[in-house]
Amino acid sequence: MVSNASRSPTNYPRNCWWVVATAGEISERPLGRVVLERPVVLYRRTNGGVVALEDRCVHRWAPLSIGRVQGDDIVCRYHGFRYGADGRCVHIPTQNAIPKKARVRSYPVLERGPFIWLWTGDDAERHDAPEPPDLSWVDDPGWVVARGDYELHANYMALKENVLDLTHFPFVHADTLAIADFLQPPEVTVDGDRVAYEMVFRDLPLPALYADLTGIGRDRRATRIFRGAFVSPAIQEATVEIVDPAAAPGQRDRFLVRVMHLTTPRSPTSTHYWWVRGQDFGDRPGVRERLQATVTAAFAEDKVVLESTQALIEADARHRDAPEVSVRADEAGMRMRRIVERMVSRETPQ
Amino acid sequence: MVSNASRSPTNYPRNCWWVVATAGEISERPLGRVVLERPVVLYRRTNGGVVALEDRCVHRWAPLSIGRVQGDDIVCRYHGFRYGADGRCVHIPTQNAIPKKARVRSYPVLERGPFIWLWTGDDAERHDAPEPPDLSWVDDPGWVVARGDYELHANYMALKENVLDLTHFPFVHADTLAIADFLQPPEVTVDGDRVAYEMVFRDLPLPALYADLTGIGRDRRATRIFRGAFVSPAIQEATVEIVDPAAAPGQRDRFLVRVMHLTTPRSPTSTHYWWVRGQDFGDRPGVRERLQATVTAAFAEDKVVLESTQALIEADARHRDAPEVSVRADEAGMRMRRIVERMVSRETPQ
Amino acid sequence: MVSNASRSPTNYPRNCWWVVATAGEISERPLGRVVLERPVVLYRRTNGGVVALEDRCVHRWAPLSIGRVQGDDIVCRYHGFRYGADGRCVHIPTQNAIPKKARVRSYPVLERGPFIWLWTGDDAERHDAPEPPDLSWVDDPGWVVARGDYELHANYMALKENVLDLTHFPFVHADTLAIADFLQPPEVTVDGDRVAYEMVFRDLPLPALYADLTGIGRDRRATRIFRGAFVSPAIQEATVEIVDPAAAPGQRDRFLVRVMHLTTPRSPTSTHYWWVRGQDFGDRPGVRERLQATVTAAFAEDKVVLESTQALIEADARHRDAPEVSVRADEAGMRMRRIVERMVSRETPQ
Repeated sequence: MVSNASRSPTNYPRNCWWVVATAGEISERPLGRVVLERPVVLYRRTNGGVVALEDRCVHRWAPLSIGRVQGDDIVCRYHGFRYGADGRCVHIPTQNAIPKKARVRSYPVLERGPFIWLWTGDDAERHDAPEPPDLSWVDDPGWVVARGDYELHANYMALKENVLDLTHFPFVHADTLAIADFLQPPEVTVDGDRVAYEMVFRDLPLPALYADLTGIGRDRRATRIFRGAFVSPAIQEATVEIVDPAAAPGQRDRFLVRVMHLTTPRSPTSTHYWWVRGQDFGDRPGVRERLQATVTAAFAEDKVVLESTQALIEADARHRDAPEVSVRADEAGMRMRRIVERMVSRETPQ
Repeated sequence: MVSNASRSPTNYPRNCWWVVATAGEISERPLGRVVLERPVVLYRRTNGGVVALEDRCVHRWAPLSIGRVQGDDIVCRYHGFRYGADGRCVHIPTQNAIPKKARVRSYPVLERGPFIWLWTGDDAERHDAPEPPDLSWVDDPGWVVARGDYELHANYMALKENVLDLTHFPFVHADTLAIADFLQPPEVTVDGDRVAYEMVFRDLPLPALYADLTGIGRDRRATRIFRGAFVSPAIQEATVEIVDPAAAPGQRDRFLVRVMHLTTPRSPTSTHYWWVRGQDFGDRPGVRERLQATVTAAFAEDKVVLESTQALIEADARHRDAPEVSVRADEAGMRMRRIVERMVSRETPQ
Repeated sequence: MVSNASRSPTNYPRNCWWVVATAGEISERPLGRVVLERPVVLYRRTNGGVVALEDRCVHRWAPLSIGRVQGDDIVCRYHGFRYGADGRCVHIPTQNAIPKKARVRSYPVLERGPFIWLWTGDDAERHDAPEPPDLSWVDDPGWVVARGDYELHANYMALKENVLDLTHFPFVHADTLAIADFLQPPEVTVDGDRVAYEMVFRDLPLPALYADLTGIGRDRRATRIFRGAFVSPAIQEATVEIVDPAAAPGQRDRFLVRVMHLTTPRSPTSTHYWWVRGQDFGDRPGVRERLQATVTAAFAEDKVVLESTQALIEADARHRDAPEVSVRADEAGMRMRRIVERMVSRETPQ
């Protein structure tokens, strides 16, 4: 039996690259974040590189994130202990000798386009792990991009299951996305640790959002292909391809939407969620703003459902062991749970 | 030794009819409530009947109370699972087969005048249990009725002990009810699981509230008989009879006040409290408003005392086992505790 | 190894005089406080003496602090149980007999100048314990005195370590006190249960605050002697002596600043902190206000550091057992920890 991973207390593997911030958030002012229950402080060093350290001075445990950055170092606000970018204490104001143990953990960190990624696991495992994805389309001027983030008061897996099963659209997003026809379980394929779904809607009228922005219009028919995948515990991706079978010669007949769902557990019941949605069409005045507003509203609808469910679980300890009734449309989610459970069980607890 | 039931964590029996809402609160918009730590969703079906279901979709546990009612059914907001009034899942949008286990608990429910009552216990026990009381006087146009409800942040037994011992009136309600003479322990009688008290004040001036509204006036003397009883863990009732021994021939010489205290545990430390107070006299313009204001203020005084006591208990775990010093005026309360403890101990824990 | 006492859950001895209130707070209106997790009610009796009782009626545990004082007694707001200043119940409204156990704990209490002190320990130990200090300088008209108090959401030892090691001044108080030269570990001496430090700055320019108010000015040099001590778990004291080696004959050459840091644990993670700072110089219009503002701002800076550290500890249970890296400047704090640990371990747990 596959247990409901979204109810399990610590269902996240450490050996993973997790988003910890957007690139624009990192500067010479320290930023404190919590990733997998660990406090982390982030700042940008003089060469522009990003530093991520354990956010706790070794001395009396003041958070380094309330201190200040000095060159490439960070200085504790309490007694001025100074740490280099590698986490090693390099200066103690009241003495010359620096104890060997005076060192905070330094986290590997990668800047990839709009996001900063943090490695929370064992060093030895890092080089075998897949690197964070290239999201160059986010900054491509040809793309119309909306993005946002929020603190979700729910387990991260609840959101990952949500975005891996679009059959909630007609119920959760009826007022915003107004896509009513997701009523078939998708095709699911598993390839290693990747779980993908596909739903094809052939030769049907397009939902208003797509009809208007592609220029196909509300009267003609077209094909939509929804694809999405669990890429890692931190990453889920999705695309919508719209194909116009009756495009006039020389006219564009393919349109693409891309969505990234990036989730980082703060704790078993709290998640930082970043999303990006882009499309390679419809770049007219006002469109970005319209998409930004629509997608923000839609993802706020998910928040209501997921948080009220989490609140219900927490209100009663008995819920944790209650069974769920799963259906065919849950296949992708169930397979993802199994993969994540395996990832977690392979790790030694810390 | 009788322990202090109001300090015990789960001191409520499941085999009981509990108030869950007022009749006016139930409509075709689902209402979520928590009763004995269980989430319940309530709505009114097309024939006017009240439906009470476990407020948790079997599928991914979204609260059904954030969904919507469709005819006699309720539809989950997350993936559209639809449940009939009996709790059975009748429709899953993405497939035809409905798993046998796709069923939420349906609670027996009764509408009796102004209140909706919920049975939280075993079905087999229900038919032996006393039915909720007839409160037809609440809607009797000859009665002047005030009513209200609040969330009490205290164990329900603390309120039940409060209303079973009126000797707190001169201290808690000195400014509102201004009834100063409750300084004798009442007569207490026990009949099965019913604990009743009686206090008679013969041939004395009436408190202002009664003197004015009966028309007996502040200068004459009359008799007051206060009676009250623990009826069930959910129900306490009280009456005041005022008898005018010197009523002129053909003039009215008896006046009646009725109070119902209806308490439903949400959790060991939180209670939903509904009260109704009516009298068969004094129906003049402004009187209902005056009574509503006075009784609301008085019961808010109880809230302060009971909640500050609960806060004190919770602030220190040692309090839970500390002894109490009880006095003769506590007799009814102590007998009630014993009865409730017996009810709870007869049940198997869930 | 000396564990980090500031992380230990109950690291306060009961055998100690603790500040519970300022003298001005005690009147014939009862005041509720929590001291070492115990609720205490305080009021002033007719002869002006201060009464401190357990803040919980023996009967049904209502806090006595929501009741009212009647002469030398306090009357419970719930059922009118009346207690004398010794904690003995002297009146029960509904009966003549008063049960022997109807007695709340009475706490020894001392009024010493501006503060009320409470003894929370064993009676037998009280007479051997050092009495609360004389703070007559606080009300001396020749002194310029600033004072304040706040609720610190951190363990009391975190604040005690803070005030026993001034090397945090250049980092925490750079903007307020602007004393930059505390960069040497102090001389530490231990005498019984007293831990004292001393730092001498000879023949140096004075920080602006001292330069201006002593009249020595910013251009001349003087000597500053900083002394401070752990006096008891409740009390830390500090002085600054400023000596002007080049004072003109007949001119004043010595100036004194006194600070008292009085800390009372409410719980392992919450502390009531009172401070008083006085100086025997600079009594000109506006100076008291300037000192009040400066010191209030400085101690608010400590609050930020100590509370964010406490929050970090509580966010992760693993932190409690993590090692600290201590340095020479921590010597006084480490010795204090040892003394307090010994005090606590000598007591039997309650």
